[in-house]
Amino acid sequence: MKQFLSVQDVPSISTMLKEVDEIKKTPFVHQALGKNKTLGLVFLNPSLRTRMSTQKAASNLGMNVMVLNVGQESWQWEMADDAVMNGDRPEHIKDAARVMSQYCDIIGIRCFPSLKNKLEDDQEQVLSQFVQYCEVPVISLESATRHPLQSMADLITINEFSPVNKKPKVVLAWAPHIKALPQAVGNSFSEWMTAAQLDFHIAQPKGFELNEQFTPNAILHHDLNSAIKDADFIYIKNWSSYHEYGKLYDGDKTPWLLDSDQISSLCPNAKIMHCMPVRRNIEVKDELLDGAQSLIYKQAQNRIYSAQWVLQQMLQSHLS
Amino acid sequence: MKQFLSVQDVPSISTMLKEVDEIKKTPFVHQALGKNKTLGLVFLNPSLRTRMSTQKAASNLGMNVMVLNVGQESWQWEMADDAVMNGDRPEHIKDAARVMSQYCDIIGIRCFPSLKNKLEDDQEQVLSQFVQYCEVPVISLESATRHPLQSMADLITINEFSPVNKKPKVVLAWAPHIKALPQAVGNSFSEWMTAAQLDFHIAQPKGFELNEQFTPNAILHHDLNSAIKDADFIYIKNWSSYHEYGKLYDGDKTPWLLDSDQISSLCPNAKIMHCMPVRRNIEVKDELLDGAQSLIYKQAQNRIYSAQWVLQQMLQSHLS
Amino acid sequence: MKQFLSVQDVPSISTMLKEVDEIKKTPFVHQALGKNKTLGLVFLNPSLRTRMSTQKAASNLGMNVMVLNVGQESWQWEMADDAVMNGDRPEHIKDAARVMSQYCDIIGIRCFPSLKNKLEDDQEQVLSQFVQYCEVPVISLESATRHPLQSMADLITINEFSPVNKKPKVVLAWAPHIKALPQAVGNSFSEWMTAAQLDFHIAQPKGFELNEQFTPNAILHHDLNSAIKDADFIYIKNWSSYHEYGKLYDGDKTPWLLDSDQISSLCPNAKIMHCMPVRRNIEVKDELLDGAQSLIYKQAQNRIYSAQWVLQQMLQSHLS
Repeated sequence: MKQFLSVQDVPSISTMLKEVDEIKKTPFVHQALGKNKTLGLVFLNPSLRTRMSTQKAASNLGMNVMVLNVGQESWQWEMADDAVMNGDRPEHIKDAARVMSQYCDIIGIRCFPSLKNKLEDDQEQVLSQFVQYCEVPVISLESATRHPLQSMADLITINEFSPVNKKPKVVLAWAPHIKALPQAVGNSFSEWMTAAQLDFHIAQPKGFELNEQFTPNAILHHDLNSAIKDADFIYIKNWSSYHEYGKLYDGDKTPWLLDSDQISSLCPNAKIMHCMPVRRNIEVKDELLDGAQSLIYKQAQNRIYSAQWVLQQMLQSHLS
Repeated sequence: MKQFLSVQDVPSISTMLKEVDEIKKTPFVHQALGKNKTLGLVFLNPSLRTRMSTQKAASNLGMNVMVLNVGQESWQWEMADDAVMNGDRPEHIKDAARVMSQYCDIIGIRCFPSLKNKLEDDQEQVLSQFVQYCEVPVISLESATRHPLQSMADLITINEFSPVNKKPKVVLAWAPHIKALPQAVGNSFSEWMTAAQLDFHIAQPKGFELNEQFTPNAILHHDLNSAIKDADFIYIKNWSSYHEYGKLYDGDKTPWLLDSDQISSLCPNAKIMHCMPVRRNIEVKDELLDGAQSLIYKQAQNRIYSAQWVLQQMLQSHLS
Repeated sequence: MKQFLSVQDVPSISTMLKEVDEIKKTPFVHQALGKNKTLGLVFLNPSLRTRMSTQKAASNLGMNVMVLNVGQESWQWEMADDAVMNGDRPEHIKDAARVMSQYCDIIGIRCFPSLKNKLEDDQEQVLSQFVQYCEVPVISLESATRHPLQSMADLITINEFSPVNKKPKVVLAWAPHIKALPQAVGNSFSEWMTAAQLDFHIAQPKGFELNEQFTPNAILHHDLNSAIKDADFIYIKNWSSYHEYGKLYDGDKTPWLLDSDQISSLCPNAKIMHCMPVRRNIEVKDELLDGAQSLIYKQAQNRIYSAQWVLQQMLQSHLS
């Protein structure tokens, strides 16, 4: 595996799920793979789950880890090609990427979108340049348009809690928020649900449809109640408008904040999912997050194993 | 050992002191205990000694360490139960605690008091919630009301430098400062001196008595010279008022800044202690900090071994 | 080796170059040396290459690493001796140095100059105090006047790419910048070129000569084209004025920004060097940085091996 930027980099979903199952049973058996190998984790944005779960995964594999908080600990990066660098960004991303390639065997990078320049975000300006110049395998720790380690952990969790002998119905349900958030989690989750060929639905207010590129096979709804009918999994998540790029929702939020009565009456067995951090009682009510059907901490736990699977693939192909 | 939040979590002071002695002689012999175990260190406040000594202790035991600077590297935490999270704190402490429990085998957390809300600080709002939701053993790296790893290192140091065949006289001496500081070090030191059944005195200006809960057996003084008469150890430390909560001392500071003449005439063998960081020539004069009777660097060194003892207890009970 | 602060601490350049060659061939063979040894890396300033390459070197040697970002993660340091510490710096450097000595076997520290107080910078106020109070070997990770790990990596690179049977001509070429930068890289490079007895030239505008202490055997030029004639290596770097201390160049920058035509006509085989971070198209044109004669990433890679050689020397002398 030369890179892990989206579901496209996974040769077989079903093989991956089986291998993850093995990793969870015996997480420490492949430490010879990671011996004297170094993982660099580069953060242009805050992180808790990604930061800690990926470190844990690397430790499980016997790797060394170096963390770099760009801008806090190091120099801000210039992104523009051919830039005359006379501003407040003293190092070019191409130099940073090439230099770090000398020190690391694998590099993970987190780079959120601006939510201001749609074209640059769609083109993954930061990630794509980093990948272009980096000479070792790159893992996306969430980029402008995708969060593949999260989506992979989500799919692992869905696989573990799916009803027997039934293709599960999965609903990605837009939820209110107080800030304009990226579409990355929604996009990425859509891609992975599509790749896993599940019965996949998305509910969102009009004008808050995701970029169609990520949702070719999703069934779209503008009404939450009809969308979640008989759902097995409801993945709750906010995103800002893609079409009016970065716009915060200013309509009526009430119909978009789920409660346990709706779950009981419409989809009594539905599991509740969220990638976190979650603004409690704004995006999701406490009664759902803390209820028996919540899977949010299982998702967080599976972040270790999605990262560990990716690292293991890279270490193995590195050796071969 | 399921938690280390105060001296109450130490079953036997004398056994602990003996075991620490062993650890200091052979610090690397228990690395099998820590293999594939991960310590998470969570800082809501700055740290030098705690940060480095606890990492060192974990390395001595063969553990992996992950450090999280909350707010700098990750998301600010909401502390209120049932909060409608529409402010500037995007993640609830309960979620952070539960998530980190998935990634770590033991978690240490530093959370200073506000010094504004006495009730919340007394109730240890942050630490108690973190402990409530954390599913692995928790170590206090200094909380609103206590600093137990420091006090344990202080007791180890006192034990090493005590006069033979004599119960030592230990004086906690309030000192001036330019900022309102927590009472945590004073409280905690008082608890540990009481638990160790030493001859324990506290000198402070009127109105600067610590919370009586921590000082049931201490002999209180309002005059520094009479307090330190024949002392074996003088632990110098500032704290703001507990009773007029968080108030900075505005009286005459002169009588509270010790000098070497006082030591020579009143307690010529007294050792000088401070937990650091210390504002030189404000809290303690250079002549005392740098003099032959200073133990401040011995205290700092023993921070490794107090942390290592606690980690070792937790790893051992984890296995059994 | 008790310290690594300048080229003076290297007993023999030629022996060092041979030993580095061995380290590059078999970087992992000396992990017994570093077992249970801890490297502390202390940053008062930003860092990418130094931070990551030194961590990598320590990992290669089997050491544990602890990083401290002073001021972000810990307390600001007071530097003045005998200070009455009533300002915004709650910990004295002497205490920090002594305390960290208890936790680390070797400590690296980065401390840039103020560029305001020439005397304090010349006297290495921060580094010299740190060394004075630190009880374990100290490595400079760039100080007010020198950057020896960089210069050593530069010399290793020059050695690897030198023409056969010829003493190479090396030119340190001042370049424009938008901010006042330290002289440390220029000073240090000059010292190492002198120690290696190469044919060493410096070109800079009038008034931008480095401190003569560092350039006793350098041939100085005020014209770039005549300086680089027949050069084998051109090391491009900005610095602010030493004589009008910290002053930014306000003359005509055009003659100081090299292009590939100049290289082709004056020194067609010259290799291009820079320590990075580099402001592209301000200090050095893309065509040179990205051209076939650029060695900038080789220099960055050799940062691992300069650090590893130093650490290995210290670990070996520690054992003997």
